[in-house]
Amino acid sequence: MVRRNYIFDTIREVFLRFGYQPIETPAMENLSTLLGKYGEEGDKLLFRILNSGDYLKNVTEAQGHKGTEAQGHKGTEDASPQSPVTSHQLAPLPLVPRSSSFDLNQFTQQISEKGLRYDLTVPLARFVVQHQHELTFPFKRYQIQPVWRADRPQKGRYREFYQCDVDVIGTNSLLCEVELIQIIDEIFSRLNLPVVIRVNNRKILTGIAETIGASEKLTDITLAIDKLDKIGLQQVNEELAVRGLSAESIERLQPVLTLEGKIKEKKGFLEQLLVGSETGIRGLEELCHVLKYLKSLEVRNKFEFDVRLARGLNYYTGIIIEVMASGLSIGSLCGGGRYDDLTGIFGLPGLFATGVSFGADRIYDVMMALKLFPDTIRSTTRVLFVNFGEEEERFSMQVLKKIREAGIPAEIYPEPVKLKKQLDYANRKEVQYVVLAGKEEILSGKVTLKNMKTGEQQTVLTDKLTKYII
Amino acid sequence: MVRRNYIFDTIREVFLRFGYQPIETPAMENLSTLLGKYGEEGDKLLFRILNSGDYLKNVTEAQGHKGTEAQGHKGTEDASPQSPVTSHQLAPLPLVPRSSSFDLNQFTQQISEKGLRYDLTVPLARFVVQHQHELTFPFKRYQIQPVWRADRPQKGRYREFYQCDVDVIGTNSLLCEVELIQIIDEIFSRLNLPVVIRVNNRKILTGIAETIGASEKLTDITLAIDKLDKIGLQQVNEELAVRGLSAESIERLQPVLTLEGKIKEKKGFLEQLLVGSETGIRGLEELCHVLKYLKSLEVRNKFEFDVRLARGLNYYTGIIIEVMASGLSIGSLCGGGRYDDLTGIFGLPGLFATGVSFGADRIYDVMMALKLFPDTIRSTTRVLFVNFGEEEERFSMQVLKKIREAGIPAEIYPEPVKLKKQLDYANRKEVQYVVLAGKEEILSGKVTLKNMKTGEQQTVLTDKLTKYII
Repeated sequence: MVRRNYIFDTIREVFLRFGYQPIETPAMENLSTLLGKYGEEGDKLLFRILNSGDYLKNVTEAQGHKGTEAQGHKGTEDASPQSPVTSHQLAPLPLVPRSSSFDLNQFTQQISEKGLRYDLTVPLARFVVQHQHELTFPFKRYQIQPVWRADRPQKGRYREFYQCDVDVIGTNSLLCEVELIQIIDEIFSRLNLPVVIRVNNRKILTGIAETIGASEKLTDITLAIDKLDKIGLQQVNEELAVRGLSAESIERLQPVLTLEGKIKEKKGFLEQLLVGSETGIRGLEELCHVLKYLKSLEVRNKFEFDVRLARGLNYYTGIIIEVMASGLSIGSLCGGGRYDDLTGIFGLPGLFATGVSFGADRIYDVMMALKLFPDTIRSTTRVLFVNFGEEEERFSMQVLKKIREAGIPAEIYPEPVKLKKQLDYANRKEVQYVVLAGKEEILSGKVTLKNMKTGEQQTVLTDKLTKYII
Repeated sequence: MVRRNYIFDTIREVFLRFGYQPIETPAMENLSTLLGKYGEEGDKLLFRILNSGDYLKNVTEAQGHKGTEAQGHKGTEDASPQSPVTSHQLAPLPLVPRSSSFDLNQFTQQISEKGLRYDLTVPLARFVVQHQHELTFPFKRYQIQPVWRADRPQKGRYREFYQCDVDVIGTNSLLCEVELIQIIDEIFSRLNLPVVIRVNNRKILTGIAETIGASEKLTDITLAIDKLDKIGLQQVNEELAVRGLSAESIERLQPVLTLEGKIKEKKGFLEQLLVGSETGIRGLEELCHVLKYLKSLEVRNKFEFDVRLARGLNYYTGIIIEVMASGLSIGSLCGGGRYDDLTGIFGLPGLFATGVSFGADRIYDVMMALKLFPDTIRSTTRVLFVNFGEEEERFSMQVLKKIREAGIPAEIYPEPVKLKKQLDYANRKEVQYVVLAGKEEILSGKVTLKNMKTGEQQTVLTDKLTKYII
């Protein structure tokens, strides 16, 4: 937790430094807000809250008879031989055996109206629509809160984990993208974690699809090329064929799939390729504008313009950003981009939005693996006073008060037990200094300060103690 | 949120200063951990999570037939005329109409195994038992997380709210109580919110019950006298009689109910009253020890020794603490005490524990009412750069970078819209300073700095800008 707080504090401080305001939203959202936003798989991973009180009260007999697409039973098929119940019965339970027309989805809807948030973006959209008349636009907000997913727990995947999101709503200025990448650069620099910031633009992908004569196959193309690193060129080409791309389109896509080189070279290549696509050229211009800007601002981490970067394409509308740990293949530490119809699904279309999300848990894992956490944050207590008994304790409590006032986290062992036990406690808590203030020391106005790391001991004036504790 | 963070940050900083480590526990706990810990009413207020996947799969026909004490139906009464279903049917739903032997509680248990945490104390107990072999005792932890209660939402009562708990596990040293009250004093002093710290000792209450010959009526006595402020002396006495206290006991209790005066006077009175009760005298000694200690440590807020303070008596075993806003009757801002069998319910008896919990939402309400939040925390952005167009923007972004490096939260309006709109934005976000850097200013190496509060404008050297932003 101490280490995780170090990550959160770093992220929060940088967000604030760039003028983003904190918001928090409730853990529970209406299921009507959440359902259908994360695909079919996402719907299954939502944690649902059972309605309070007698949640079966409003379950109607009708449930199970309307039939959803999933089960598709018709209302006329209801009468199973095992459930001779009329539909006029009061407060009935689902009396139809499940093998018949019972519809689990519909039953679930009737007993559960709320779910735990699955990410921070949909709650943000709901929040912005709900408070649109009170908010100041462009609305710059950050949000650091847990989200929940009913995944099978496994290493690196938790049922509850934190997301750290930062977004600007209400402007299509590319300055936002510039700042978001500055934020990314600043955060990972502060964490001492070298990263590669990969960028692309959805408009370039659109342009490529246009250029190779496969506009309507944009999703298929990106889904296939997203797998390039995993399955290799040949299999990607096979998949493209299966997905219905013509041999000619696949042929014309080859230079894109194998595109390597410096940003300048890629730019040159794409300028030629996209010459017939207005959208594609605009995408390339946007990207180059942002990259040039960032160069002038002396961003410290490396850039990579990867024309194959898509990150769930249907969502993004402009620049796409993904951050990887430099030299490690562990998945992205941060990602995002422009998604210019955030609030459309909630009835407020046309609100520009761009943002990125930091995966605190994965950042934590990488920092642990690379031993990047500074020693100084490992312990919450800098100084432990040994407890020698009532009289010494009273004396120590007075000194302790001054040390804490000087901003140093400090404590005294609460009982006068054996010295060894108290030193063990200090070691296990990784306390840096131990103060020994026995009767003699008190009389002489001095205490013994022991550095637990080096083992060094020195006698120092009680009044000067804080100066020795670095 | 900015204001709430101010409260959280203050609380967190003081907790850390006293050597407490942060922990967090998952939002979801097993219902078996939560149920029965908060009384019957509490059980009803738990939010339950529907099991994932086909949650009806494991609902057995047997459910509803075992009968709980609430409904009490016997297993032999299952065959309602409307449900001629054999118990051998696979994956059945609850086919028995609810008017018959259906048991909602049991059904709920089968479709929901997890619930949202209701407080931070029960999860702490579960955590300590689970990690008892890894933890360093005395275990000093703090925890600041939301809890959930299915209350009807109303003013001052939320379904999701934060608790800020600080506890020491594994020592019965009274030093813990001294430090907890130091922590309370420090937090409310930093928040500039004057409070009265009320204290009592459960042992004194036990002693009083012994002394008046009503040991077995301890709960009744405290429940009744807890209402003294609300219903007055006469009605308390009536309630005591209804609760079965003898006229003599009630008579002997009167001096306690009307006890007023300075701490010294109360102490003198109780020393006499409790002379026959070892427990009572010990309780009084403990309390006096703590109060004397605190006096020597120059605690700034006022104390009140209130022999009627109980705070859900059955829970506490020693000193009881409650903090009220000075001069306001708004309920307690913080409360707690010693509860020396925290982990007994989870099979680890005899672990000493003491702690207090801060109600951040109520503290927030009081601070808003008394206008105690400092002006400086109202805005997250200290400086806004006006955006005059591409060239000026590039210049501003360079200056902005330096200002942020100096630790000042700053931003630039992302689009070169009309000046009025940008100044409106600054005003709505309560930004203190606006920087105007037009073409002329850039050439002269100076910018215009406008104080949005006073309206004052001055021209300052760009290099010296940070010095003017206080």
